[in-house]
Amino acid sequence: MKSADRTTNLIALLTDFDVKDGFVGAMKGVILKINPKATIVDLTHEIPPQDVDAAAYVLWSAYSFFPSGTVFAVVVDPGVGTKRQILCTVGRNHIFLAPDNGILKYLEADAVLTRAWEVKNDKYFLSPVSSTFHGRDILAPVAAHLSLGLKPSKLGRRVTLPGQRREFTYLQGKSSGKFLGNVIHIDRFGNLITNLRVCPHVGLSSRGLTVRIKSRAIKGLSQAYAQGSANMPLALLNSSNLIEVGVKNGSATELLRAKVGDRVLVEIKSR
Amino acid sequence: MKSADRTTNLIALLTDFDVKDGFVGAMKGVILKINPKATIVDLTHEIPPQDVDAAAYVLWSAYSFFPSGTVFAVVVDPGVGTKRQILCTVGRNHIFLAPDNGILKYLEADAVLTRAWEVKNDKYFLSPVSSTFHGRDILAPVAAHLSLGLKPSKLGRRVTLPGQRREFTYLQGKSSGKFLGNVIHIDRFGNLITNLRVCPHVGLSSRGLTVRIKSRAIKGLSQAYAQGSANMPLALLNSSNLIEVGVKNGSATELLRAKVGDRVLVEIKSR
Amino acid sequence: MKSADRTTNLIALLTDFDVKDGFVGAMKGVILKINPKATIVDLTHEIPPQDVDAAAYVLWSAYSFFPSGTVFAVVVDPGVGTKRQILCTVGRNHIFLAPDNGILKYLEADAVLTRAWEVKNDKYFLSPVSSTFHGRDILAPVAAHLSLGLKPSKLGRRVTLPGQRREFTYLQGKSSGKFLGNVIHIDRFGNLITNLRVCPHVGLSSRGLTVRIKSRAIKGLSQAYAQGSANMPLALLNSSNLIEVGVKNGSATELLRAKVGDRVLVEIKSR
Repeated sequence: MKSADRTTNLIALLTDFDVKDGFVGAMKGVILKINPKATIVDLTHEIPPQDVDAAAYVLWSAYSFFPSGTVFAVVVDPGVGTKRQILCTVGRNHIFLAPDNGILKYLEADAVLTRAWEVKNDKYFLSPVSSTFHGRDILAPVAAHLSLGLKPSKLGRRVTLPGQRREFTYLQGKSSGKFLGNVIHIDRFGNLITNLRVCPHVGLSSRGLTVRIKSRAIKGLSQAYAQGSANMPLALLNSSNLIEVGVKNGSATELLRAKVGDRVLVEIKSR
Repeated sequence: MKSADRTTNLIALLTDFDVKDGFVGAMKGVILKINPKATIVDLTHEIPPQDVDAAAYVLWSAYSFFPSGTVFAVVVDPGVGTKRQILCTVGRNHIFLAPDNGILKYLEADAVLTRAWEVKNDKYFLSPVSSTFHGRDILAPVAAHLSLGLKPSKLGRRVTLPGQRREFTYLQGKSSGKFLGNVIHIDRFGNLITNLRVCPHVGLSSRGLTVRIKSRAIKGLSQAYAQGSANMPLALLNSSNLIEVGVKNGSATELLRAKVGDRVLVEIKSR
Repeated sequence: MKSADRTTNLIALLTDFDVKDGFVGAMKGVILKINPKATIVDLTHEIPPQDVDAAAYVLWSAYSFFPSGTVFAVVVDPGVGTKRQILCTVGRNHIFLAPDNGILKYLEADAVLTRAWEVKNDKYFLSPVSSTFHGRDILAPVAAHLSLGLKPSKLGRRVTLPGQRREFTYLQGKSSGKFLGNVIHIDRFGNLITNLRVCPHVGLSSRGLTVRIKSRAIKGLSQAYAQGSANMPLALLNSSNLIEVGVKNGSATELLRAKVGDRVLVEIKSR
């Protein structure tokens, strides 16, 4: 990423703050005081309290659609006020500010991160810094300065990136086999999203494919939710190229009483 | 609408995506990649899943307050991935991008729509287009291009607008009579909004008027919610010129156990 | 505040409208029609219906982080359509448009308000003005005009500010004593926020301090939520310098079955 990229003025916020209190508003006020030209996008603030895994999934599913240079400020931070670090991690096209608590795990799995720095330089923080609201006092002002072109290296010591994580299981569309995964996210419609992934441009044949979840066997892949039948689960390849289980005009999580972590098995029989 | 109107950079989003996932964020990222100067307004993302009628009402109640040239991207789309069309419909002052599923019905009732085109030209779509998330892959990028001045005719074939629909029942304030309608929307406060409508500037006398709903008879119209008594329903002419049933500091839907579709009868006795 | 400050184009909205209907969207449309360059920030729209106290707290907790010149349009308004006044109140750095119903009480307690005017001049309102939606028809357009530099004195008669209110109890960190307060807000995480306040830069010793709430005695203050033990309430000084009761990775309101209004006693023993 060239430094010119870093002046897009675009900041995306991802928190578990909900919007019923003034937390998110205060963060936006802080940002706009420092960079009045900032465009602030709410990725979501409805992450369940302290649910780092949910935040990791939502960030991964959306970040690549944002313009080059976007600064993501990610505040799901059960360890706020403790010794946990806040990192500024630079990816191929984006900057991620977040506590060092695994929230970038799917980005690490995709090897999109290139360098990271500690966020320690209190020149770019509010003063004083509270012990309970680093979103407002550290991440918001630092994001604003980054959106104005501040180099991440000004924030603190360079740190080593963790090694590439294995979070996804890849289905090889052309061979037979069994692939075991899990439900990693349940979306607003009750769809069950798994970590079973298909590379784009790799053909995955629907014939001979069975998805097994909660004692159900779903034969083949659908193209659309509307192709299913009422109260019958269907499987499809979702818009993030992950195997997903849904139900036409209904909720798969309710129909199957499924939850995050449940096992999902995909069987592909040779043709 | 002159083409100059079409470069307001203003895009309003209306979906049933909720904001707990990254769906809305991804749409905004796509828009800002194409038009970095876009101003994006969330009309709402809290439409109940697949509730096309609720979306139709919310759109109708709010659109006319937006600047000329605003592009509305409406994504309540149970048929995503099927053969249902997406249309770009131009009204007197605004542009509406939406699946062809009745979501514009109240606009059709008001005869504000003038022309429509299919949205088929994949030059303006993301590539590849997923089968489950046309909001991100089709409506967001097309909205962004329209906000930059793209002519709707570039999107596909011109299609015929449906005939004018009859969705409202008009009360004639100066005559007596009985007017039958339905609850068409329940708002956040539990107010019951009906399709019984009064033209602005037509005087509607509160005297001799009775609203009947769920075995209750409400005499006369109030000017304000605060004019009512606790636990007593009141009727008023709401900010969209529709007859509405509410209750002071309470919820009419809870008090009356009323729901969308319930019958409402207005009787006006001659004076 | 100099008049130059009043052209920041920044408007913050605080309502109890929720975002499921088109209320907030319509307000934004109205604002952008009048000031296309306005930056609109949602402080929150999730205030419980008609809960003026909750709105007062959220406004107070966040306003000072916004740029000088920000116009706050506050619409929690059970008296809409009655004779209650709408006021334009100017503080040291900000402008507040709100019904005169106590919603500014914490700002009054902090003596940040300097002058106030009635909002009566319908030249700056939509026409016609509905009796049920002054947020759209009065506060939104007036906020837009103020964001363009309109002087508040153009809106109506100057009115007298109420005297300074006493809403907080100040803990004197260096002396012993008992300080009685209440829970005034419960945040999204279930933390119990009290009106027991510590001036910044006044050292408050954690030693010898006990917080009593709902038959529990919490000894000392923690620095971070994560310092607590599971299912054990902890007390800390929150990011607004108020005594707050929380619980590590949990909800204090659920653990203690506490609610707004509950008594909280802080005892400080001499060292």
